[in-house]
This record gives sequence, C-alpha cells and structure tokens, in this order.
Amino acid sequence: MAKNNSSYDLYVQKMQKIADVRNSISILNWDKEVNLPAKGGATRSRQVATLAGIAHEMFISKDLGILLEKLNEGNNLDEKQRRNVELSYKDYRKSLKYSTDFVVRLSNLTSEAYHAWNKARSENNFDLFKEAFAKAVDIKKEEAELLGYEHHPYDALMDMYEPGSNTADTDVLFKDVREQLVDFVREIRNKPQVEDGFMRKFYEKDKQWQLGLDVLKNMGYDFDAGRQDISTHPFTTNFSAEDVRVTTRIDENDFGNMVWSCIHEGGHALYEQGLPPEQYGLPLGNYLSLGIHESQSRMWENNVARGLPYWKAHYKKIQKLFSENLNDVSLLGFYKAINRVNPSLIRTESDELHYHFHVLIRYEIEKGLMEGSLDCADLREIWNSKYKEYLGVDVPDDNHGVLQDIHWSHGSFGYFPTYSMGSFYAAQFYKQAEKDIPNLTEKIEAGDNTPLLHWLRENIHQYGRQYTADELCKRITGEKLNFRYFMEYAQEKYSGIYGL
Amino acid sequence: MAKNNSSYDLYVQKMQKIADVRNSISILNWDKEVNLPAKGGATRSRQVATLAGIAHEMFISKDLGILLEKLNEGNNLDEKQRRNVELSYKDYRKSLKYSTDFVVRLSNLTSEAYHAWNKARSENNFDLFKEAFAKAVDIKKEEAELLGYEHHPYDALMDMYEPGSNTADTDVLFKDVREQLVDFVREIRNKPQVEDGFMRKFYEKDKQWQLGLDVLKNMGYDFDAGRQDISTHPFTTNFSAEDVRVTTRIDENDFGNMVWSCIHEGGHALYEQGLPPEQYGLPLGNYLSLGIHESQSRMWENNVARGLPYWKAHYKKIQKLFSENLNDVSLLGFYKAINRVNPSLIRTESDELHYHFHVLIRYEIEKGLMEGSLDCADLREIWNSKYKEYLGVDVPDDNHGVLQDIHWSHGSFGYFPTYSMGSFYAAQFYKQAEKDIPNLTEKIEAGDNTPLLHWLRENIHQYGRQYTADELCKRITGEKLNFRYFMEYAQEKYSGIYGL
Repeated sequence: MAKNNSSYDLYVQKMQKIADVRNSISILNWDKEVNLPAKGGATRSRQVATLAGIAHEMFISKDLGILLEKLNEGNNLDEKQRRNVELSYKDYRKSLKYSTDFVVRLSNLTSEAYHAWNKARSENNFDLFKEAFAKAVDIKKEEAELLGYEHHPYDALMDMYEPGSNTADTDVLFKDVREQLVDFVREIRNKPQVEDGFMRKFYEKDKQWQLGLDVLKNMGYDFDAGRQDISTHPFTTNFSAEDVRVTTRIDENDFGNMVWSCIHEGGHALYEQGLPPEQYGLPLGNYLSLGIHESQSRMWENNVARGLPYWKAHYKKIQKLFSENLNDVSLLGFYKAINRVNPSLIRTESDELHYHFHVLIRYEIEKGLMEGSLDCADLREIWNSKYKEYLGVDVPDDNHGVLQDIHWSHGSFGYFPTYSMGSFYAAQFYKQAEKDIPNLTEKIEAGDNTPLLHWLRENIHQYGRQYTADELCKRITGEKLNFRYFMEYAQEKYSGIYGL
Repeated sequence: MAKNNSSYDLYVQKMQKIADVRNSISILNWDKEVNLPAKGGATRSRQVATLAGIAHEMFISKDLGILLEKLNEGNNLDEKQRRNVELSYKDYRKSLKYSTDFVVRLSNLTSEAYHAWNKARSENNFDLFKEAFAKAVDIKKEEAELLGYEHHPYDALMDMYEPGSNTADTDVLFKDVREQLVDFVREIRNKPQVEDGFMRKFYEKDKQWQLGLDVLKNMGYDFDAGRQDISTHPFTTNFSAEDVRVTTRIDENDFGNMVWSCIHEGGHALYEQGLPPEQYGLPLGNYLSLGIHESQSRMWENNVARGLPYWKAHYKKIQKLFSENLNDVSLLGFYKAINRVNPSLIRTESDELHYHFHVLIRYEIEKGLMEGSLDCADLREIWNSKYKEYLGVDVPDDNHGVLQDIHWSHGSFGYFPTYSMGSFYAAQFYKQAEKDIPNLTEKIEAGDNTPLLHWLRENIHQYGRQYTADELCKRITGEKLNFRYFMEYAQEKYSGIYGL
C-alpha cells in the first residue's frame, strides 16, 4: 500500500513534469514522421532539440538529486515507491556522468556520422563513411569508459538498451546460436524450397489498410488509446499508456510487408498500452528494456501470427478478401509461404531463423570494435566475410552490406543484441503461456487472443521496470533467458514445414 | 543592416527557445484537435500545461529581463532589431504584472467557467452558467486593473488582442455600423429574397475534400509548408512560417460550410506563411494583431471569394464537378446565393452584413459588464432584447442566444471586436489593392490570385509586428481604419444583388 510521503509526492510531481516534456518530444517526432510538410524539417529539429535540452536540465537538476538521495536513504516507502526511487536515482547518477562538453561532442559526431552515412549510401561506398564512423566508435569507447563497466567496455553500452545485460551472458547465447542454429538452417537449405510467389502479386492498398486495422483490433489493440497511420518506416511511439500510436507501410506488391509490420508494431503497442497509467512518468510506468519490448513484438509476429493456429482463424477471411491471388492457395500453402527460410543480405528482410546470424555478425563486430580487436578500416571486409561464413551469401555492394543499418550512424552501439534477445525471450515466455493458459492453441484457432493478452498483461506489462529482465524471466519461467526454448520452437515448427 | 551585437544574439537565442516551446504547445494542440484518441485527453492537457508553465518561466526570467532592459536602453541596434527589443520588453513587462497567484486563480476560474458553460449548453439554460460567468467577469475586471488603462477598463482587455485599440475608436466604428448598416440591411430585407436551396443538396465528401485542396492551391497556399486536415471546428495554426496548418470540416448537405471555412482559414494561413522566417521567435516574425489576421481571412473569404470575378474563374469547374446539383444554376444565380443576406441567430452562420450586429451586441455587452453598467444576472434579457433590436429576431432559447459562443467561458473578453475590425480592414486594404494592382479584377477573373498575394506579402505579411495596426493602415491606405470602405463595398455589391 502506498504510504503518505510529501517528499515522494514532490518526486512524482517532478518526474511527471519531465515525462510531459519527454512525451512532448515524442509527439513532435511522431508528427515529423507522419505529417511534416517538406519545408518544416529544420524548425522541427530545433524544437525537438530545445525540448530535449529542457528535459535534460530538469532531470539533472540539483534539487531533484538532493530529493532522490534523501528518499533513497529513507525507509518510509512501500515496495513500489522504493523501486521507483532506486531506479530514478540510478538513472540520475548515470545522467550526471555526461558533461555538457561530452554531450555536445557526441551530438556533433553522430550528426556528422549520420550525414556521412547518408552520403555513403547515396554513392554506395563505405569509404565515404569510414572516417566519420571511426570517430563515432572512438567517442562510444569514451562513453563506455565514462559510464564504467566491470569486465568489457561493450557491457557499458549494452546496459543502455538492456539493463543488466553483458558480453559474458550474450556470448553464451550466441555460442548456442552458432552451434545449434547454423547446422539446423543448413539442413533446411538442403530441402526443397516452399512456394511463395503469390505473396508478391498485387494486393490493393485500401483493402490492406482495412485488414491492418482489423488485425490490430483482433490482437486487442485499443483504438481509443491509440491510432494507426502510414510512415516510411513503421514504428510505435507513446505519449502515455492512453495514447500509444503505431504506423505501418503498405507495398501493393508485397503482401507480407504490411501484415508483419502491423502485427510487430501491434505487439510493441500492447506492451505500452498495458503499462500502469498511475505510474505515468515513473520507472514503474516505463518499459523494462528493449529486449523485453522486442519479446512482445516478436511473440505476436512469430510465435502467434506465423503459426498455423492463428491462420486457421483468419485465413478464410483473407482468402476471400484477396480471392484473385489466394483462391488456389491452401491454408497449409499459405502457412509455409509465410515461413519461408532463405538467407538474405538485408537484416530487415530476413526470415526468423537467419535473422539471428545478422544480429550475431553485428554483435561480434561491435564487441571487437569496442575492445579494439577489430579496426574500422577493415569493416567492409570483415562484414562481407562474416556474411559468407554465417549466411553463405556474397555481398555485392555496401548498400547491401555494411551500410544497410542506420544504427551506427546514430551512435547506437549495443542495440542490436536486444533484437535476438527479444526473439529468445518470446519463445521462452510463449512456452510458459502454453502451460499456464488452458487450451491456448484452441483459443487462438478460434480467433480469440484475449487469454494471451491477459497473460501478458498479468505477467509482464503491469510491472514496468519493477523487476530486472532476469528477475522477470525467472518469475515467469523459473529460469533466466535460455536459447533452448527458441531452438525447440524452431525445430518443431520448421521440421514440419520443411519435412526434416 | 543588422549590426553585430552579442547581447542581441543572446536575446534572439533566448526568444527562439521560448518560441520552440510555444510552438511545441501548438503542435500538441493541433494533434489534440486532429488526431487524439478518446482516452488521450487528460494526459495531453497536463503535457500542454507543463510546457505552458515552462514557456512562461523562461519568458519572465530575470536574466531575460536584465538583457532586454540593457538592449532597450542601448543604441547599438538597427531599426528592426530595435523594434524587436522594444516589443519584447513591452511584452516582458506586461507578463511581470501577472503574479503566480493571479494566474492560478484565472486558470481555475476559466476552467470552472468552461465546465459550467458546457453544462449550461447541455441543458440549454444560461442560469447554470450565470454564477461562473460572473466570477469570470470579476477576474477579468481585476485583470484590467492589473494591466492598467487610461480611459476605460475594457481598453486593457481589447489591447490584448488588438494592440493599440480602445473603446474610444471602436465606439466610432460601431456608431457608423449602427447609423449606416442598420438602414441598409433593412432596405435589403424589403426586397425579394434570392434563391439558395441548391446549396443544401447532397455534395459528396470526397469531391468536396479535393475541391478544398484545389481552392487552397489556387489561393497560393504552399502545401510544402503546411497541410489540411479535418477537425470539428476549422482553425489555422503554425509551428513556424514553414509549417502552417489548416483544418476544415465537410457537411455533405451544406456546400458553403467547407468552401468558406477553407478559404477563410486559407487567408489566415497565407499570412502566417508570409511572415519572415528569419525572424522566427521574434516579434517581427509574429502576426501584428487579431484584427489584421482577420483582415486576411475576411479579404479572401468575402472581398475575393464571394465576388463575381472569382466565380467567373471557378464556377464552370465546380458546376461540372457537382453537375447533379448545379446544372440548372447560372453563374449569377450562384453568386447571388452565396451572398444571401438574412438575419440569423448564430454569429458563425451569419452573412457578412448582419455579422457586425452580432459583434456589436457582444461589444456593447462586454463594455457594459467591464464598466459595471450591466449586470451578469440580466445577461439573457439584455442579449435577447439586443437581438430583437439589431437583427429583428426572437431568440428562442439560450443555446441559440447567450450561450452560443465559447469565448466567455475561456475568459476571452475583448476578442470579438477584432472580427469586425478584420472585415473593415479587409475592405479598406482591398480598395487600395485595386488601385495598386493593374487590372486586379481581370486577373482574378482569369483565376490568377498571384498579384493579390504578392501585394499582401509586400504590404502586410513581411512586416510582422514592425508597425502598429494604425501605422500599417496609414502606410498602405493613407488613413487609419475607416468604416466607410466597408460600407461602400457593401453598398456597391448588395445594391447589384438585391436591385436597390
């Protein structure tokens, strides 16, 4: 039960005002992606920068620091309050490590890197990015030192996106990926390929749009607490748990594009809509980590909506909607097509198995760059040889290789591993959901996703940052993150599809 | 030429940051009207309130005050810089007059008034608004005292919306309205009425929407620096001169609704798009006054787009687009219909002549309340008897009478007169434009609005707040605002239409 405490109330007030400013930034950014007229870009950037500066100043203010220190030392708080204060104090002390000088240099160098990356992309030549990239790597090394770490500089960066994660644990995960997934995928490649040509016939835009809305509604997405729009790159953003917005894109010649982005973002959005509104602006009202966030999108995308039970519920409707393309395609044919395994050059176009090789490669590279065992100058060669090794593909040019992701140009090092962790958490959680929810499969076959959403709300969403990812995973499944659940899921599913 | 001055640069920097926050509020409010999901309202309100508090604190900061005082006393500035500083210093000193206590009380009372007004509206009963209204009037009287005035407390409130305006000048304007317009409108009422039933046939939504976009484009609205959306009440807002947005609404059974709101908001938007972007955040980058703003919307709406030359250019296209409704309607029949003069109970549905009686009534009431010659308790009776006197109509209930406008519930006293001033400025400016632009009428008949827009840019838009409204009007037309130009415009136009 919450205890009365005027210092705590003051802390809440301050944090919620900071959240108001941060959420305003999200509104400005959402509007930028969805609505901004061509000439509005420059002013919008300065408006976002001004609000970001204000939010930062508010958060590193001495007043807040003194308040947090006092609250953190006291013992007049209930469990949730204590956890909020503990996390805010940790975030606060972390923020103080960033000097203004460092923030300005980081901002300038990443801005420089972003422009160089764009230039390099337009000329399809990594050499034009190399120099700016090396500077970005250097300042990220500096950031790792400034943040501090126990064992490996990369740990400090990983912790920014997945608090508590580190290279020691992640090495174990990716060792399993290497040892188990590589062979399994090789087996699949030796089998006859499934047919999916019909996925790239003409699927009318307006019909796809309406389907996307129906899909979201069926997942349990609350349109009174959000909306869907179109943007170049699909994303989810939120301004409170009562205003969580998704975007999608529609390619009339690639049916999968809209469907999976819609479900993926829908999974993210359900997490945000499930966070406790009364914890607005506080750690317990915030998502736990990017890995856990991704576990929600991946579970809906892969474990649910690339599964046969899901399509038993929905295929007939879709077959009717696009009868000109799907009349001759059986449910099983559709199910196989949407689970086609094929190595690709581009991460975002990958199937759910090869995906982890894409991530593994980036993980090895980032770790090597941070510890100094790899050199930026050699990146193209390293990249290409790793793609040959893990995916068996020849990289034809830099845009299909080392220049494909925007992340490094933004200075986002340590982000990629959370994508794989997300899938692995998803498999582990889903396995548990199947145990906990009576007849889960039958319910999904009947088009009823409510029990699953309810389970996610109860076990994950409602807690925000109350537990660490490790603690949460143990509470739910009895053990920490383990690759074996993903591997079992993959083996069961793909053995069926490819007749292994 | 701009002089180098590091204090001035610092002032610009501070003002532009404040503008960033204020414009962010506008983005949040635009999004609220256009996109907000049902449950998002409460958090959005607190986000807006937080940003408003921050902007206010930034503007009343001692640092800025000292800087402004210093700059205002110095003589190291060019003309534009001097004017910016002069206006900012004036705005700053005005802001300081508001104590936190007063701001909180004002905010609470207007919030209370707004809720009471909504309640009263829903029960169609002014008595439910009376008490909250009286409190709102009292605090506005207090605000007038706090701001200070020379002759009349209402002057202080008028000055908030139309700087430099006062009851002495406005009494003269409305005396002319009473003496000249009342008789003229009575003459019209004695003539046979024009036919406009076809305006309320069925006009398909999608076609209207496309027409609205075409109309805006033809006016010269830059869609690379703005966009149009749908909202319940049409409005214009801007986040910089490069992002000026309009909204409209579409009634499939009332063709005029979309067309005039679209052109009206388009006129406002052209003004904002024409403000100098290099003066972002400074007084010279801001609109001069609400009256001048309204002169832009009214000129496009009435002087241009309710004119015969405009429809000579566009009627054929529209007749073809809605041939089922307009095939039998001649250009002249259409022109007469859109200029139908008929007394109405609701201000926003009024023709352009009766409109000024609606405003006159509100002006007389507000002035009377502020000086204490009228009593809130008698408002319904006062309202109804004035409507009988000036418009010859019987008010059937409060929703069609004293409760119709949202303004008072927001504490906006002194706003209404700017609506009439806008029309009168529009007529006076347009008369001058006809003199200055060779063959203006022929150009509009040919569908070319560029010369007019160019004239407005040159004579009005580019200056922002550089001149007072009086100075601007004298610069352009050689004299200050004079009702005679509106009266001449009305006589010429409506004598033709009604055969006087």
